Amino acid sequence: MDDILQATLLFDFYGELLTEKQKTIFEMFHLSDLTLSEIGQELGISRQAVRDQLKRTENILLQYENKLRLVERFQQHKNSVKEMKKLLEIFESKYKDDKEAVSHIEKIKNIADDILD
Amino acid sequence: MDDILQATLLFDFYGELLTEKQKTIFEMFHLSDLTLSEIGQELGISRQAVRDQLKRTENILLQYENKLRLVERFQQHKNSVKEMKKLLEIFESKYKDDKEAVSHIEKIKNIADDILD
Repeated sequence: MDDILQATLLFDFYGELLTEKQKTIFEMFHLSDLTLSEIGQELGISRQAVRDQLKRTENILLQYENKLRLVERFQQHKNSVKEMKKLLEIFESKYKDDKEAVSHIEKIKNIADDILD
Repeated sequence: MDDILQATLLFDFYGELLTEKQKTIFEMFHLSDLTLSEIGQELGISRQAVRDQLKRTENILLQYENKLRLVERFQQHKNSVKEMKKLLEIFESKYKDDKEAVSHIEKIKNIADDILD
């Protein structure tokens, strides 16, 4: 898995299906930015063992996504909401002199932002 | 699990993590609306065995949701999109004489409908 963003996204969705050890190593590497050596030292295992564990964990996460496609489904939703927001912004700029319209559109955009957070 | 809708929603999300047998029995009961006896006859097992399998499968699905909360997350997104759509409709009714506005709002509502489908 080349894409770190993709790995952390999968972890965000399926992380709770991992063992505690898998979670710990994944978090140390991807979220706390420790090196393989640092993680190995911390856990009393070799650098290579850390690397193997990480690889295995990433494969498990990928397998869940290949089966469930829930990250993909979420991303599609988010893209649609982004599209809605873009159209709302075009609309807002056309009606920028109409205070009531702008305030109404802002309200809708805020909901979009909550979804996109 | 009392709520059939909830069961099928969980199945829609996590069904691919079940065994083929679990999937088959779940689908026969919840999607094809066969009775426990009919499923038992079809599969050559007792009515009680079907009931036990169904219960177990529903528990497995619930356990996945308790860990991952992805159905809940999706439902929250959908509720927000419904809220956006409601506000768009209020807006549309206020600007109903402005053809360009109506056409623009319709476009945004269509995207909302795609998400809610």
